[in-house]
Amino acid sequence: MVTILDVARLAGVSKATVSRALNGKVFVREEVKARIFQAIADTGYRPNQLARNLANNKTNSIGLVITNGLYNGPFFASMIYHAATSSESFSRQLVLADGKHSAQEERDAINLLLSLRCEGIMIYPKYLSVDELDEIIDHNTTPIVVINRELPRHRSQCVFVDHQQNCETMMAHLLAQGHRRIAFVAGSEGSPTGESRFAGYCHALRKAGIEPDPQLHVRGSWSIDSGYQAAQQLLARNVPFTCILAANDDMAIGVAKACQEAGLRLPQDVSLAGFDDSVIGQYYNPSLTTIHVPMDEMIRNAVGMLLQPDAQTLNAHQGELVCRESVASAKKAR
Amino acid sequence: MVTILDVARLAGVSKATVSRALNGKVFVREEVKARIFQAIADTGYRPNQLARNLANNKTNSIGLVITNGLYNGPFFASMIYHAATSSESFSRQLVLADGKHSAQEERDAINLLLSLRCEGIMIYPKYLSVDELDEIIDHNTTPIVVINRELPRHRSQCVFVDHQQNCETMMAHLLAQGHRRIAFVAGSEGSPTGESRFAGYCHALRKAGIEPDPQLHVRGSWSIDSGYQAAQQLLARNVPFTCILAANDDMAIGVAKACQEAGLRLPQDVSLAGFDDSVIGQYYNPSLTTIHVPMDEMIRNAVGMLLQPDAQTLNAHQGELVCRESVASAKKAR
Repeated sequence: MVTILDVARLAGVSKATVSRALNGKVFVREEVKARIFQAIADTGYRPNQLARNLANNKTNSIGLVITNGLYNGPFFASMIYHAATSSESFSRQLVLADGKHSAQEERDAINLLLSLRCEGIMIYPKYLSVDELDEIIDHNTTPIVVINRELPRHRSQCVFVDHQQNCETMMAHLLAQGHRRIAFVAGSEGSPTGESRFAGYCHALRKAGIEPDPQLHVRGSWSIDSGYQAAQQLLARNVPFTCILAANDDMAIGVAKACQEAGLRLPQDVSLAGFDDSVIGQYYNPSLTTIHVPMDEMIRNAVGMLLQPDAQTLNAHQGELVCRESVASAKKAR
Repeated sequence: MVTILDVARLAGVSKATVSRALNGKVFVREEVKARIFQAIADTGYRPNQLARNLANNKTNSIGLVITNGLYNGPFFASMIYHAATSSESFSRQLVLADGKHSAQEERDAINLLLSLRCEGIMIYPKYLSVDELDEIIDHNTTPIVVINRELPRHRSQCVFVDHQQNCETMMAHLLAQGHRRIAFVAGSEGSPTGESRFAGYCHALRKAGIEPDPQLHVRGSWSIDSGYQAAQQLLARNVPFTCILAANDDMAIGVAKACQEAGLRLPQDVSLAGFDDSVIGQYYNPSLTTIHVPMDEMIRNAVGMLLQPDAQTLNAHQGELVCRESVASAKKAR
């Protein structure tokens, strides 16, 4: 392995001079610097970044924590993509760490990234509560921004959308199409996103004078497959409905498959809608009515909050109704 | 910020004793250890992992390099998911770094992970050549495993499938269905995976006595949207075909959209197939005929190669034809 001594020898300078040139903190003559960088190129020397980070107390990387149970779908693929490209636009490297399956493991992942001296850390929490996130932010000097949670105590360190309001917007559209028997495929139990969307569903129904029917309520766990299974449960109940609203696009795609297998045409026999505006919904057949969540903008703002904490950055983002082929006017309930 | 000194004071021991207890290398009495760990819990002290890694020259993490241009789709989402769960099954943490847009940036990402003292590194290369990968493996003592490239010089440090052979298997199936005018939507120019698949397409046609028609050849860049645009180009040429083979499932889904917009029914008017067996193809309408690439098994073996280099691990993996609804017998060419 090539060491700094090999570089120093080839450049004809001391180890300390190589080190000074690399750290860029102390003046080194241009001509000497050129010789040193040539020697680095010639020897293939790789400075010990870990030691450098420790000494400088910084890196050029931004950490992101997401629990691996969420990786496997187009929505989070898109989020990781936006996080990487936004980091790159700030000349930073994205480093993703896995939050695994518990609040403690989400903490561990944050701590790993902190100990690697990431300049800032974003977390899309699944298990950590708002109180715990507040406490983590309070106890760290490294900037931490939370994606998809409103933190009233740390308004400049979170980006979020109002999922309940977005769901009410969607429901207003479905009700306006004449749907009264609207089934709901909920996300994982205990998910704040899922609960907000379900609250929006119930609230919109009651505002329209309709009492939510527990027979029309099934639960998935966000994945395509879980949506498929939830729709099969719903269909087995033999209760009438004209529309299914799934709490995300991935589950809506699973729902579509179960409906098609049951001989139901979309949207002629049953309407279908989702949330997130994931790219697959746009290309699905029929294309999916959904709520666009401005993930690219949210992530760009989150990276901005980390690196330019004094800039005024938007934290409350707006979702937007996207009407496509999967929703038609209600005819009569099956 | 809490320091080791705070822990030492609270536990009534010296800094050196706390350090010894944390490193676990030197004997510390159980009763003293208990007091130290209680003090760590009480103070919220976080040991400096970076310094620890530097001292121990190891972490419990596995690095993965993928270029961010590939993140944004269901196939790589699934790969990152398998990498995280496989790492976790070996009690390791996955750390993903971005290979960005060039061989140099893929190198930089490997070097970043090496300098963070990852125990092993996996790379799914987009820009680095086999020669460059060989050289990187030669010059590093940390185990490096390459995903999706055959490295004849480093057979125990790569996992791959024979894309040309898989494409010939797919073509044999399409030809057996009576298709003669089969269009091909290629992947990005210069991609070894894409070129192998295209070679398989040409070879299979010639074996069947059919000369590949350049009019039936269009190029995408792996994404859903690029498949959609490529199919629009193909349709604009007004040349007859009965089947479209896309070099991956994501592009096939874009192709399906373009066909549907042009009023073509799948598979009645045109058959369609892809590669990868991504989850979305299974749920698409019609469900997609494809080649299953055993990514979960490949990634599990790659992690095994990193952590148990002496174990015999399979590197050449087999793809498998998956027949679904999107391919029907050829009737007559449009």
